Amino acid sequence: MVIETIREKGADFFVMQSGNANFLYATKFRSSSMMFYIVGTDGTELLLLPEMELRRALRESRVKEIASYEMLGYEEKIKEFKNPKNAIAEILVQVLKEGRAKKVLIPNDFPSFFAFILQKNMEVEVIDNPFLKQRAIKSGQEVAEIRENCQKIVQIFPKIMKMIRNKRSSCEEIRSFLEKELWIRGLIAEDTICSTGKLSADPHELGSGKIEEHVLIDVFPRNRKGYYADFTRTVIIEQNSKLKEMLSAVIEAQKKAFSMLRDGVNGRDVHNAVKDVLRSYGFETKKGEGFIHSTGHGIGLEVHEEPRIGDSDVELKSGMVVTIEPGLYYKDVGGVRVEDVVLIKKDGCEILTPFERFLVQCNP
Amino acid sequence: MVIETIREKGADFFVMQSGNANFLYATKFRSSSMMFYIVGTDGTELLLLPEMELRRALRESRVKEIASYEMLGYEEKIKEFKNPKNAIAEILVQVLKEGRAKKVLIPNDFPSFFAFILQKNMEVEVIDNPFLKQRAIKSGQEVAEIRENCQKIVQIFPKIMKMIRNKRSSCEEIRSFLEKELWIRGLIAEDTICSTGKLSADPHELGSGKIEEHVLIDVFPRNRKGYYADFTRTVIIEQNSKLKEMLSAVIEAQKKAFSMLRDGVNGRDVHNAVKDVLRSYGFETKKGEGFIHSTGHGIGLEVHEEPRIGDSDVELKSGMVVTIEPGLYYKDVGGVRVEDVVLIKKDGCEILTPFERFLVQCNP
Repeated sequence: MVIETIREKGADFFVMQSGNANFLYATKFRSSSMMFYIVGTDGTELLLLPEMELRRALRESRVKEIASYEMLGYEEKIKEFKNPKNAIAEILVQVLKEGRAKKVLIPNDFPSFFAFILQKNMEVEVIDNPFLKQRAIKSGQEVAEIRENCQKIVQIFPKIMKMIRNKRSSCEEIRSFLEKELWIRGLIAEDTICSTGKLSADPHELGSGKIEEHVLIDVFPRNRKGYYADFTRTVIIEQNSKLKEMLSAVIEAQKKAFSMLRDGVNGRDVHNAVKDVLRSYGFETKKGEGFIHSTGHGIGLEVHEEPRIGDSDVELKSGMVVTIEPGLYYKDVGGVRVEDVVLIKKDGCEILTPFERFLVQCNP
Repeated sequence: MVIETIREKGADFFVMQSGNANFLYATKFRSSSMMFYIVGTDGTELLLLPEMELRRALRESRVKEIASYEMLGYEEKIKEFKNPKNAIAEILVQVLKEGRAKKVLIPNDFPSFFAFILQKNMEVEVIDNPFLKQRAIKSGQEVAEIRENCQKIVQIFPKIMKMIRNKRSSCEEIRSFLEKELWIRGLIAEDTICSTGKLSADPHELGSGKIEEHVLIDVFPRNRKGYYADFTRTVIIEQNSKLKEMLSAVIEAQKKAFSMLRDGVNGRDVHNAVKDVLRSYGFETKKGEGFIHSTGHGIGLEVHEEPRIGDSDVELKSGMVVTIEPGLYYKDVGGVRVEDVVLIKKDGCEILTPFERFLVQCNP
């Protein structure tokens, strides 16, 4: 896919820096060092990195052609340029010029420092990283990673329900228990949302204190290979007809989305259908209240990745793994959200986080 | 410090994007959303973010002037530009133009997509992020966070020694035990190095299998506020005179560095002194073997941050927290490294990870 993009754009190379999921996906090499990955029109690949990573990269990376900065004159260049970053930029330019680069493509998040130096030496065009599109369609192995994460969450959730039922735990206690149970199963969860009361009208409020009338739990753990899951449930504890009505609408909207998901559907149509259901329940969106975020997002090596299911056109395809997470938020009431991870298939979809949606736990 | 930089450079604003430690440090606001932080010559600050983060940011951020994209015409712009990124870029340009920006500064890692659009509208200069320098000197609270992390590691390490002594555990068992003990104490450790044998000649080899003649353990946990610690010990298990000689040299080199650390010393001089000690033991560095990395780095909201103690000039100052981690690596033998976290003071330094350095555990 990246080669096609290079050709379409009339460029010679695509260059990407380390420190992000695209780099890990493309090179299968994990390191905190500053590295570059270069692809040419003919599919030639090159990984540039510090000498101290060379042997390990030769063993571990999918990319077979690897050069160290030191092999390319780093020692003289650091004397000339005084600082490592400039020396490395000079090496990058030199490598591209040796490849007769007249035009290179860089991804949106490419660091400006290097982009501006490249610009002085050749034409530079910023593009959406082609690997983002490639990553959106998961391999069987990737689906298996995410599926396993989802199963672990679903296994733990009955314990969370019991915790809420038995003793009205605090947000902190629930968060800490949930993150511990996930950790035991090999997953790292941070910033788990466990919010209650009116502050839950802010979708990313972490939450604190005793649970009031309801609780919104949103957890997005990651396994050691870097794959995520993402799951939200809202539990209503006290009788509150407004919250119940909101939760019913959100669940109905989610069902509507599930019914539309299949290969070829436009994500924007799904988002619009979700909005319609919520509106049909009388829930309006304005001034930071109502349904104030998008319907969902891809999930994989990042918790939010392609495709985005919202106001933009996007063709959903078989093999994509996305969240469907309608929510409603009103300052005077609080927020509710229900979120599941879904695998898109040719003729429908499979919910990877099968767990009851309408959750009401009355006081003992 | 940022205001001085803006004035020195004859610029009107400094603009930084979210998703990095500098942003968290500057705004004290944590979110996965795409946000921008803008500072003007007169110290005016502005935080730009999606409406769904607005109320939470008003509660949590240090920055008091906050505007949402929606307040600035996002809805019309998304219709015009079709995609969120372009709509947000347009809003950023509009805000800067309303502030009569003729020249703006952006940090090295600012995403090229936004930099190139800014460039079409005003002069743009890429600079070292001024917050990197500011972050290098820790506040009392920051030192306390790092100190506490260090103490937790040092508390656990005797258990690791016992584990090695008692049953020659595997690298995986040691890593897993260490990460679990840290997790229990509120710290998240990932990619903990526990390497053995000849592969340990690669400083970032994670390690696997039964421990051979020695083991190198390098752990860098982070607490929930985002602060790191970083600690390495090498334990020699079998009699191996080469490894012992290497470890002695490294410990001697580290001591030499400690003796030099104080307010005002040049990091490059410390690095050179470390190299001299290793050379005096007969250990040469060439072709990816020997002392193949720098002497140390600052530690804080990132595991590697300013100052870098290596081949470049850098004035070490009181209040900096750095690692001192000489190592030696030879393909035919393996690698040894000893790393401590150190607080630089006016007339010396304080080691925050006090734990025995020369570690030999003979077979039972």
